[in-house]
Amino acid sequence: MEKGYLLGIDIGNTKLAFGLVQENTHSFQEKRVVPTEPELGAEQAVEKIMANTRELLKAVPGKVKGIGIAFGGFVDTTRRIALASPNFPGFRNVPLVSLIEGLAPGIPVFMDNDANAAGVGEVVYGKGQGCSQVLYLTISTGIGGAALYDGVPLAGTQGLAGEFGHMIVLPNGPRCTCGGRGCLESVASGTSIGRIARERAQGRATMMTSLAGGIDKITAQTVSQAARQGDRLALEILDEVGFYLGIGLANLISAFDPDIVILGGGVMNSADLLLPRAVRFVEEHLTPRGVQVPPIEVSSIHNDIALWGAIALAGCFYIVD
Amino acid sequence: MEKGYLLGIDIGNTKLAFGLVQENTHSFQEKRVVPTEPELGAEQAVEKIMANTRELLKAVPGKVKGIGIAFGGFVDTTRRIALASPNFPGFRNVPLVSLIEGLAPGIPVFMDNDANAAGVGEVVYGKGQGCSQVLYLTISTGIGGAALYDGVPLAGTQGLAGEFGHMIVLPNGPRCTCGGRGCLESVASGTSIGRIARERAQGRATMMTSLAGGIDKITAQTVSQAARQGDRLALEILDEVGFYLGIGLANLISAFDPDIVILGGGVMNSADLLLPRAVRFVEEHLTPRGVQVPPIEVSSIHNDIALWGAIALAGCFYIVD
Repeated sequence: MEKGYLLGIDIGNTKLAFGLVQENTHSFQEKRVVPTEPELGAEQAVEKIMANTRELLKAVPGKVKGIGIAFGGFVDTTRRIALASPNFPGFRNVPLVSLIEGLAPGIPVFMDNDANAAGVGEVVYGKGQGCSQVLYLTISTGIGGAALYDGVPLAGTQGLAGEFGHMIVLPNGPRCTCGGRGCLESVASGTSIGRIARERAQGRATMMTSLAGGIDKITAQTVSQAARQGDRLALEILDEVGFYLGIGLANLISAFDPDIVILGGGVMNSADLLLPRAVRFVEEHLTPRGVQVPPIEVSSIHNDIALWGAIALAGCFYIVD
Repeated sequence: MEKGYLLGIDIGNTKLAFGLVQENTHSFQEKRVVPTEPELGAEQAVEKIMANTRELLKAVPGKVKGIGIAFGGFVDTTRRIALASPNFPGFRNVPLVSLIEGLAPGIPVFMDNDANAAGVGEVVYGKGQGCSQVLYLTISTGIGGAALYDGVPLAGTQGLAGEFGHMIVLPNGPRCTCGGRGCLESVASGTSIGRIARERAQGRATMMTSLAGGIDKITAQTVSQAARQGDRLALEILDEVGFYLGIGLANLISAFDPDIVILGGGVMNSADLLLPRAVRFVEEHLTPRGVQVPPIEVSSIHNDIALWGAIALAGCFYIVD
């Protein structure tokens, strides 16, 4: 029998990514990335999603076996609707699944939020292969995640399980984008690392200021860059971030006791600077009571993970309508 | 057909409890409680377990359909062995299931740790009835719990999921019995409430000292007693305990998004003093990002919950050998 194709669609706030992959392979037949441009409204974004999907379906006519959508926001998996995206306010209650089904009658379409999709991607294509209990965290501008059992993310009653970024690791800590205080996201996301560095660079000697071309321009990338050159403040900040990440990971391992913990997202490009501190904390906290610390690994596919997640969804068929 | 009976055995550090319940009823046909006396060694405890089980089996000859064991320690559910109990060091690697099977050939015997068993008890007999996703916490001398899906506790890779008491809620906080620092158990268990009160009563005017007959004799019960009479320090301590309990609950809801959270254990006899603060924190933390806070309720059967858990295990037959 001729092999079919899987089509993945990753809908983020900054980019829309599309990938076409032959079944049982792990490389793109075709991959496209276009800007989301949320400032132009939801309609144009939906049009871009539809146009690119239509073109990719035409590229391998009659051969696409499944379509998966990873959405960077809240998803109602029962009603199969993209409910809302925190950073794309216009994109609300979009019936993405039906729209895509209209383009491809008879082809199953599956959608989940990007963190759950990424977790499924890790199980199907990444370091979660062969593991029955996987904990996945994405550490990027925000922090999200999924706990997967036999490849299926725990959904929760409201579809809101896996909001690991909003677990509190510092009581009365910094204000988080969610409105809470001291969330893991408020002290360890890329956005937070940049904010903390800008705050602390005031009146301190640090090469971050010159590297960035001004205190106001310091980002998480600046912090990593300076840390690699031995900047004391940058190293101090990343040590602290590693500590809080360690608390978050230790808490998740205490709750879930997974086979493996996989970390993805842009901040993991600095895993060498952050992760040893986090893992040391986890070991110090868990081993005295006899817990074997599971492998804590950086995703090998984290740059495209949500797209691979969408492709994995396309081939998984685990969501019962 | 004649109704059968379920036999539950709750093996704790201070007491051994046995209960015989007719199927589909919710009251004891017979209930026995004997002291564990760990200081006398494991052998005498096993003998008491065997003797009482034998007698209860004889009370309704041929009518016991299942036996459940709730063990206050680590359980290897695969090998069906009571591995170890933190506060009963002599009780190690006891093949409890085989021993009980020897007394009752042909009757299925099931065992789990007491927190998981209690969670199952809540689903079968308590406030978790009809809920598919239940989070159960026991707040007693220690803090444990279980996340249950369709009545089955998430076990984890090492059987160590649900260790909610060792989630960190206060970085660099008090030393916990587990060896870690700032665990929920170190700031909100009954033992910890007593310890905190004894520390803070030094040099402060508080009726706790006289109520207990000396600072060294203050326990969690003293704190509640004094708080009910308006003692400022006692109220301050319980407010803080409620705050940390709130952090723990908010974190668990962010991770699991359950239908309901059920709280059991002796500390919940003071739920009126603690829980409003905890629930207020949870609401303040979760509602800004649109999470509906699930019902957070005190178990209606928390005094005997581990025994009811054992009885529920006896009738559940969910563990596949």
